[in-house]
Amino acid sequence: MGKRIVIALGGNALGKNLPEQMQAVKTTAKAIVDLIEEGHEVIVAHGNGPQVGMIQNAMAALTRSDPEKYILCPLSVCVAMSQGYIGYDLQNALREEMLDRGMTKGVTTVLTQVEVDPKDPAFRHPTKPIGAFMTKEEAKKLSQQGCAVIEDAGRGYRRVVASPRPQSIVELDTIKALVEAGQVVIACGGGGVPVFKTNGHHLKGAAAVIDKDFASSKLAQQLDADCLIILTAVEKVAIHYGKPDVRWLSELTPEKAQEYIEAGEFAPGSMLPKVQAAVEFAQSKPGRTALITLLEKAKDGVAGKTGTHIHR
Amino acid sequence: MGKRIVIALGGNALGKNLPEQMQAVKTTAKAIVDLIEEGHEVIVAHGNGPQVGMIQNAMAALTRSDPEKYILCPLSVCVAMSQGYIGYDLQNALREEMLDRGMTKGVTTVLTQVEVDPKDPAFRHPTKPIGAFMTKEEAKKLSQQGCAVIEDAGRGYRRVVASPRPQSIVELDTIKALVEAGQVVIACGGGGVPVFKTNGHHLKGAAAVIDKDFASSKLAQQLDADCLIILTAVEKVAIHYGKPDVRWLSELTPEKAQEYIEAGEFAPGSMLPKVQAAVEFAQSKPGRTALITLLEKAKDGVAGKTGTHIHR
Repeated sequence: MGKRIVIALGGNALGKNLPEQMQAVKTTAKAIVDLIEEGHEVIVAHGNGPQVGMIQNAMAALTRSDPEKYILCPLSVCVAMSQGYIGYDLQNALREEMLDRGMTKGVTTVLTQVEVDPKDPAFRHPTKPIGAFMTKEEAKKLSQQGCAVIEDAGRGYRRVVASPRPQSIVELDTIKALVEAGQVVIACGGGGVPVFKTNGHHLKGAAAVIDKDFASSKLAQQLDADCLIILTAVEKVAIHYGKPDVRWLSELTPEKAQEYIEAGEFAPGSMLPKVQAAVEFAQSKPGRTALITLLEKAKDGVAGKTGTHIHR
Repeated sequence: MGKRIVIALGGNALGKNLPEQMQAVKTTAKAIVDLIEEGHEVIVAHGNGPQVGMIQNAMAALTRSDPEKYILCPLSVCVAMSQGYIGYDLQNALREEMLDRGMTKGVTTVLTQVEVDPKDPAFRHPTKPIGAFMTKEEAKKLSQQGCAVIEDAGRGYRRVVASPRPQSIVELDTIKALVEAGQVVIACGGGGVPVFKTNGHHLKGAAAVIDKDFASSKLAQQLDADCLIILTAVEKVAIHYGKPDVRWLSELTPEKAQEYIEAGEFAPGSMLPKVQAAVEFAQSKPGRTALITLLEKAKDGVAGKTGTHIHR
């Protein structure tokens, strides 16, 4: 019996620039189509850190070239553009991989907005890195323009933006209708275009980038999915990571995961949000499982052979 | 009884830049929701001339800033981005206008690809203007970089790209499924991302921008729509346009329209492609009507009160 599965693709599934992306999506598509071929309903979400940063740099370069003609493009619009930029290659790679296997399922990218709370404290503490690494000098210049910049774990400097928690998926009914029509859906690209409600039901873009793992968890909950797969660079979640007594985890209850979170076992901005997003999904309803594993292990993970499974 | 209607929005329905767009889509949404409120199924297509040109300028500025880091973004990817850029504002304006009237229909932007023929002669004769007007000096510079440039009716210089004819809508099943689920769909933005088949079923982006009126006509045919509305800057199509004996046309058969086309009655790049796209739709099956009119006259037009109706 097929499951309804939401897959959250990490950066390595997409690459950091266009030539990398065109190559990476081919491998990514194989792993995803493996699941579709087994009869699962698949909804694909993905991040956009390098891409949205690149798009914003491009739009900023345009504004600098003629400030009277071009206003600076809001970050929310850049996220919308990044959904087109990534979705186009990703949907074609999925389409092609399916056709190569004789499958004629449709695949669609849905422009997705995700509601956030304008009072989210994240707006006062930008933490989400976007764009390429910069030198110290480039970082200083950007900082003088009013952008928040951090030094990222010795790898250089990056711009950071607010990353509020997702509250609800605006285009949920659309995604549902397509899944029920048998389509493969790409949704919540880059965590979704962040919007908040003003004047009743008017949606206004927020200067933020939503974490794709939290957005995927929210999407999986609202779609009543059976499984949320968070793909990352390790096969399993570990405690005492990077130490001699490292322990790789196969099964984890939300409660146990919470204990490890509180003990500081997971790195912020890296494994921590993935485990938090997984816990949120696993806790939300009995029977829901979150799986954290490598892209190439997704199929084995769903079959229970590897990865870290978080469920009640 | 509600009709299935494909609406092709012209440039004035969207504005030429972001502030104009955010304002223009509100008026556009009112006219479209008038039709939805009457029980019609509505699919919205739109152009992207100024927007895709702006996006390509931005991506080119990024490449110039660091040619080793950023390859030049292909035009097809820029079209995909423009669908996000425009769809985001347009779908929110539609959503808000419907909620203001107590309607809870979903509205979605579908990333749409449109197949073209790689042997289309249009690839050898670029005719479609994109981007903002340029000075003679700017045009010369761009021309030296290998881009085709034209002087546009005394209003300045513009870049021109190939505009091949649309052959089929790749995401047709998706659009159908959503229309049948009662959704309002924005599709074929900017005429669709132009792609052609290579190596069997692999889709490759084409360096082109498809005319939105021809793409809308193809979409309307493939969706088996009853009506194609091409919105433009005049209430009716005219012969002897701009002359003392101008004659505004209310009804037109495809045959009569063809006669006028051959007599050179319609301006290339302006009314000509609209009439041609309308004729294609009207000819494709009995009972199909194409309507050319003003945005604010769309409702009256569908009711038969104004506009130019082209049908067998």
